[in-house]
Amino acid sequence: MSEDFLKAAMAAKEAAAELAPLPRAPKDAALRAIADALVARSAEIVEANALDVRRAEESGTSAYMIDRLRLDEARVRAVADAVRQVADLPDPVGEVIRGGTLPNGLELRQLRVPLGVIGIIYEGRPNVTVDAAALCLKSGNATLLRGSSSAYESNTVLVRIMQEALADTEVPAGAVQLVPGQTRESVKELMRARGLVDVLIPRGGASLINSVVEEATVPVIETGVGNCHVYVDADADQDLAIEILVNAKAQRPSVCNAAETFLVHAAVADAFVPRALAALAAQGVTVHGDARIAAYGDDVVPAGEDDFLAEYLSLDIAAAVVDSLEDAVAHIRKYGSGHTDAIVTRSVGASRRFVALVDSAAVAVNASTRFTDGGEFGFGAEIGISTQKLHARGPMGLPELTSTKWVYTGEGHLRTASGTVIASGEAAGA
Amino acid sequence: MSEDFLKAAMAAKEAAAELAPLPRAPKDAALRAIADALVARSAEIVEANALDVRRAEESGTSAYMIDRLRLDEARVRAVADAVRQVADLPDPVGEVIRGGTLPNGLELRQLRVPLGVIGIIYEGRPNVTVDAAALCLKSGNATLLRGSSSAYESNTVLVRIMQEALADTEVPAGAVQLVPGQTRESVKELMRARGLVDVLIPRGGASLINSVVEEATVPVIETGVGNCHVYVDADADQDLAIEILVNAKAQRPSVCNAAETFLVHAAVADAFVPRALAALAAQGVTVHGDARIAAYGDDVVPAGEDDFLAEYLSLDIAAAVVDSLEDAVAHIRKYGSGHTDAIVTRSVGASRRFVALVDSAAVAVNASTRFTDGGEFGFGAEIGISTQKLHARGPMGLPELTSTKWVYTGEGHLRTASGTVIASGEAAGA
Repeated sequence: MSEDFLKAAMAAKEAAAELAPLPRAPKDAALRAIADALVARSAEIVEANALDVRRAEESGTSAYMIDRLRLDEARVRAVADAVRQVADLPDPVGEVIRGGTLPNGLELRQLRVPLGVIGIIYEGRPNVTVDAAALCLKSGNATLLRGSSSAYESNTVLVRIMQEALADTEVPAGAVQLVPGQTRESVKELMRARGLVDVLIPRGGASLINSVVEEATVPVIETGVGNCHVYVDADADQDLAIEILVNAKAQRPSVCNAAETFLVHAAVADAFVPRALAALAAQGVTVHGDARIAAYGDDVVPAGEDDFLAEYLSLDIAAAVVDSLEDAVAHIRKYGSGHTDAIVTRSVGASRRFVALVDSAAVAVNASTRFTDGGEFGFGAEIGISTQKLHARGPMGLPELTSTKWVYTGEGHLRTASGTVIASGEAAGA
Repeated sequence: MSEDFLKAAMAAKEAAAELAPLPRAPKDAALRAIADALVARSAEIVEANALDVRRAEESGTSAYMIDRLRLDEARVRAVADAVRQVADLPDPVGEVIRGGTLPNGLELRQLRVPLGVIGIIYEGRPNVTVDAAALCLKSGNATLLRGSSSAYESNTVLVRIMQEALADTEVPAGAVQLVPGQTRESVKELMRARGLVDVLIPRGGASLINSVVEEATVPVIETGVGNCHVYVDADADQDLAIEILVNAKAQRPSVCNAAETFLVHAAVADAFVPRALAALAAQGVTVHGDARIAAYGDDVVPAGEDDFLAEYLSLDIAAAVVDSLEDAVAHIRKYGSGHTDAIVTRSVGASRRFVALVDSAAVAVNASTRFTDGGEFGFGAEIGISTQKLHARGPMGLPELTSTKWVYTGEGHLRTASGTVIASGEAAGA
């Protein structure tokens, strides 16, 4: 482990221990100090960002990626506003989740506590640097941030400004750390820093997430890959189904809760598929269909296995006709990513079966897949959408950034083979 | 991946999909069928176990380990009784944890669902084979069991009996699988079966758990290493402290919630330490103390770093004098395993600070560490005690063997840039 990395990780670990027991008020004050500093020093941020943008332009990065990278004064203000919104959210730390008095009189409570040090590996825009740090800070966690090297100048200045803002607060400045260096080695160090880092959250495409899962010894929460399905049942209201399908695919195709495949029950294919193809074409969507879908339209591109596995994130959608709800479920289990899958049906029985059989983070009934989102669910903020089953599944808000601790309080409770005994002091008098 | 392993893992995965949607009644019936079959076929089990025992004796295994390995008719009946107790526990699957109606009218529920396929790697006694399978089955999960090769004959027969018992029930027989073969390679296959196995729970010593964490690509729940502390505060009731210390150390030294170190505030060391040494000596406990402890007794063995790190699991305890509660916390953070740490104090302030600063799965106030246990906490059963922070921390009962699923139900809910719109069918009429 390099000296630079170890220094940053140790600083985060020490800060985490100081930050964990803080109540809400000093954490909120620290977040507001960060927001103020970001606005006050936005010129510095924009200047550093310009270096990243210029380098990206020189290396021929696409206009779309450059737009994601770019920060201007208005975007910095928006980032600061988001930090203030996090300050306004309730603090999950200290919440009593379960508890009571045991039959032997021990008072037992299970409390939410911070996880400790959270490593974030992300490809995205530099605003993630601030968003992630703010959510982790609010939930009492220190962060070790490893952003895209393409945003290194921006991230360096953003973290420096956050640390300097924290210096005048009760939150230790070390609670926000950028992983030093832009090397691949620094990602590996973060992934294998067991004992220093409590959890790793990779945010990015499937290849990033796979490499983290493969190499990490630190526990990982997988996020974000969404191969979402819309299944149009034999009993569907077809008008509803068309609108849900179009919304799920086309309202914002680049996000993980957009639909990537639709499945149609054979009993309604004749009526539904031609209308679906027309409605999707009207939105500029290319349909990659199996042979039974292709029979309904000349513009259908033949679909292979890769199409059913694809997270297009574009105006493309795969499609197939299925002979039963169970076949739709089997297709989703085989090709899906366990993010969000929707059924459109009027049948209570069909919706019950679909909900029970589909093994995904979210199941939508007569609603667009686009609602799987921390903001829509009322979480106020979201660090990502987990597609794994351990710890957190689906949109992750502040409570998902916590662990728990059991506390039990007695008056000299001792455990014996025949049950609890309360210490009398007599045995000790010997 | 070997063909044998793949076959067992695929069978478990298919069974998991069938098992997951089953309600409570058929699962309880299946558990009772297993219990009945174990009792009815106990002679077969004892016979197979005798082969394991003989091999262990021939290879010079200690009498203690052989006792752990041995099954007789009475022990088989106890195993079957434990299965019946699991049948009597409430089913966590389907429980609605959170939910409500969102402002836009979407009905949102978060339900408990099974994890899927759980891999269990264990060193322990063959009864773990049945206990673990029963807890997983009750919570709707299939199991891939990899026990100690020293118990392979016993485990093979136990799993065969369970599978044959399941054949007459609604639970698929494939829900309980033994990992084929006794090779080290088969452990590795289990650890790297991402996509086939959802969670891995290693039960055993620190070296087993470390090797699993190092090599696994399947998410792991770490269990069981307990280096528990008893801290005797300046404000402790010393009579209580002696009894708690003796109970935590000596009532059952071989378990993970037994105390392995005690720390004494310097202000009470003169009064407390001589009494503690006498009380521990009376129970046959050897004290490994720092220089300040050694000053109080000739029988104190000098303690090094290794002693403070040790999980003795024997009649040994490390000890040190500390100058403050904060020094006690620093010691626990440095050497502890994050299992259970206790404070003995009359001071509300000291107990508040200790609870806030100690970062462990459980913190005990004026009670023995021995109460950190699923049975004592009222869980009815326990698959292990998690000492990590993700997913589950502390004793793990049936709810800890579940994940969750979000379900949202609408009437044509669409997401737009300006908020939710309910599909009218008009757009679809185009």
